[in-house]
Amino acid sequence: MEQSDSSKFLSWEGIRMVSRSVGDVSGGTPYLLIDGAKMERNILKMAGVARGNGVTLKPHVKTHKMPGIAREQVEAGAAGITVAKVSEAEVMADGGMEDIFIAYPLVTEAKIRQALRLSERVRLVVGVDSLEGARRLSAAVEDRTLEIRLEVDTGLRRTGVLYDEAVGLAGEIEGMGNLDLTGIYTYRGAVLGGSKTLELEKAGLEEGHLMVSLADMLRERGIRVDDVSVGSTPTAEHVAKVDGVTEIRPGTYVFYDRMQARLGACSLDECAAVVVCTVISRPAPDLAVIDGGSKTFATDVGPGAEPLNLEGYGHVVGYPGAVLERLTEEHGMLSVDEDCDLEVGDTLQVIPNHICSTVNLHDQVYLVGEDGVVEETRVAARGKVR
Amino acid sequence: MEQSDSSKFLSWEGIRMVSRSVGDVSGGTPYLLIDGAKMERNILKMAGVARGNGVTLKPHVKTHKMPGIAREQVEAGAAGITVAKVSEAEVMADGGMEDIFIAYPLVTEAKIRQALRLSERVRLVVGVDSLEGARRLSAAVEDRTLEIRLEVDTGLRRTGVLYDEAVGLAGEIEGMGNLDLTGIYTYRGAVLGGSKTLELEKAGLEEGHLMVSLADMLRERGIRVDDVSVGSTPTAEHVAKVDGVTEIRPGTYVFYDRMQARLGACSLDECAAVVVCTVISRPAPDLAVIDGGSKTFATDVGPGAEPLNLEGYGHVVGYPGAVLERLTEEHGMLSVDEDCDLEVGDTLQVIPNHICSTVNLHDQVYLVGEDGVVEETRVAARGKVR
Repeated sequence: MEQSDSSKFLSWEGIRMVSRSVGDVSGGTPYLLIDGAKMERNILKMAGVARGNGVTLKPHVKTHKMPGIAREQVEAGAAGITVAKVSEAEVMADGGMEDIFIAYPLVTEAKIRQALRLSERVRLVVGVDSLEGARRLSAAVEDRTLEIRLEVDTGLRRTGVLYDEAVGLAGEIEGMGNLDLTGIYTYRGAVLGGSKTLELEKAGLEEGHLMVSLADMLRERGIRVDDVSVGSTPTAEHVAKVDGVTEIRPGTYVFYDRMQARLGACSLDECAAVVVCTVISRPAPDLAVIDGGSKTFATDVGPGAEPLNLEGYGHVVGYPGAVLERLTEEHGMLSVDEDCDLEVGDTLQVIPNHICSTVNLHDQVYLVGEDGVVEETRVAARGKVR
Repeated sequence: MEQSDSSKFLSWEGIRMVSRSVGDVSGGTPYLLIDGAKMERNILKMAGVARGNGVTLKPHVKTHKMPGIAREQVEAGAAGITVAKVSEAEVMADGGMEDIFIAYPLVTEAKIRQALRLSERVRLVVGVDSLEGARRLSAAVEDRTLEIRLEVDTGLRRTGVLYDEAVGLAGEIEGMGNLDLTGIYTYRGAVLGGSKTLELEKAGLEEGHLMVSLADMLRERGIRVDDVSVGSTPTAEHVAKVDGVTEIRPGTYVFYDRMQARLGACSLDECAAVVVCTVISRPAPDLAVIDGGSKTFATDVGPGAEPLNLEGYGHVVGYPGAVLERLTEEHGMLSVDEDCDLEVGDTLQVIPNHICSTVNLHDQVYLVGEDGVVEETRVAARGKVR
């Protein structure tokens, strides 16, 4: 197939063709379709941001949850990956990942032991954010050692030791002897506490400066800080510029989504993942019902909520007037113009508001390569609730 | 074990004990815990409602998604089950169900063929709500026959032919010859269009009367209506009293949830399913972070939304002042009183806002029997997006 045909194939029109063939071979809609070429561009772009600024890239794989895509990220230049769960780390280690950061405090004996077992076969670093958590880690580690990073809250009010208490906690951890504290990390993102959006460049620079200042304070106390690691797709390109930041951990960029487009981190056209749905009912001129509901589209970034104030649960490609207004588990209610031409049986593509939690709802995705071949791929680290 | 001990075991204190043992044996929290005795009471209560009113019970199994629980419902008196997907029907047929209603319009050839194959081994009835859908069914059925029911919109504005157009559509379907129209069905529930809550008894009676009137109109035209089937846990006990209603299809009652308690359909104490979580961080006096976020708790019934206006994403058992205020994928932010005694490592039970979509997030649940034995059960029909 020639290049021109190939790129035509990956247009939405092309995806419409693919949809029909997937519909035939595997039970139809709804399903998640990934545009491999767009994904590849996204992967290369972020690798370039890291390389250009001399920082390490450890993408958070929560967005795709697939070892094959993690391998592509590493091949493009990522130094390793970030996960939230030991169970996800195990899947990724089985898939060939050798350098894994669990950006999450492990506080139960069962999980700490699981992490210690995994640390025997890969380079594993785990998060700590409290004295009690550190004590539990230290007790389980016994006469071995475990590499850890201190999580610091820079404004999200989630996990992370309060900024002003970080130096004190780091000192206590150092005193435990068997925890190898090699860095600090934070995640703030661009949406704080569900109520505030930050201007991306300003947010990234501020986040970076906060972390670098803390690293300096720690080093003044004689505490080693190799890694100053900062998260988030929307702030990554800005935080990477801050002198002293050593690592970025964006996740969503691999596919991007409607929320990232709203934040200004990408265009809608860069979004590599769509949910393909079928119109199953057209009961009234202003209503079309699709076969994707809250089991298909994540609802954690819902419509209308401040500060994003997105209209509906996704962007309906090619139907700018259609709003995915309500979801029940198996139904999506599209409010449409009265002259909308959608009919029962029509196929639609929807860019979800939040792709990470949407991927988690799907056991498999369909990846369209540049050659037009559709590959069914299992979301191997999906559903790792624990 | 004596009865008194056994019931003590199933108290929340008892569940706390179970949690510790599950934590030891299978990798810890978060996980879904089902109180078998409460579930059994819920199953028997609804079976009693149906029996007492002389109507058929076909529970929607979307709530539990487990063939073993469907069997318990049938043993207690259910005549069969309701599902939303052919793929779910297949799992349930494999699990021994012989009478299955797919309360969903099937409009693609792939799904219609899948349903026809299944109809060779169980009694299968499928939904229809449009002329185009009926034509597609009829074309695929060819010289065989398929039992169908007409879905009618009684106010939810989801799928379902408009009430005033139902008689006309039924006439056209009759004319197709190979579709065996045996009944009508609706789902309205108690929350309409995300913006209006109905008073349960009034809602149930009204819903029932609407459907019975329609059945009468259809019969006047010579159209056969054996089944007048009405959905929904909150309205079931009321709609069952309406003379002429022949079937109820509640789903959520098997476990109940916080939304049902808010609607007045149950008490919080009747809720049989809780998510067991661990406090992983206690960064500030007014903040406790648990290891369950939007991958663990469904967010389709979020806090603050009209008309339910629930505070937070679940009810935290034993901590009435704690509000599960924000979720990210792996973190739940509990806003707590400054003197709250929760510490890192503590275990909590949370009754989710919406149990059906929450179960869909979990590959397995833990069922505590009356004997105190904890059984890990796979959610076999989970994730049937298609």
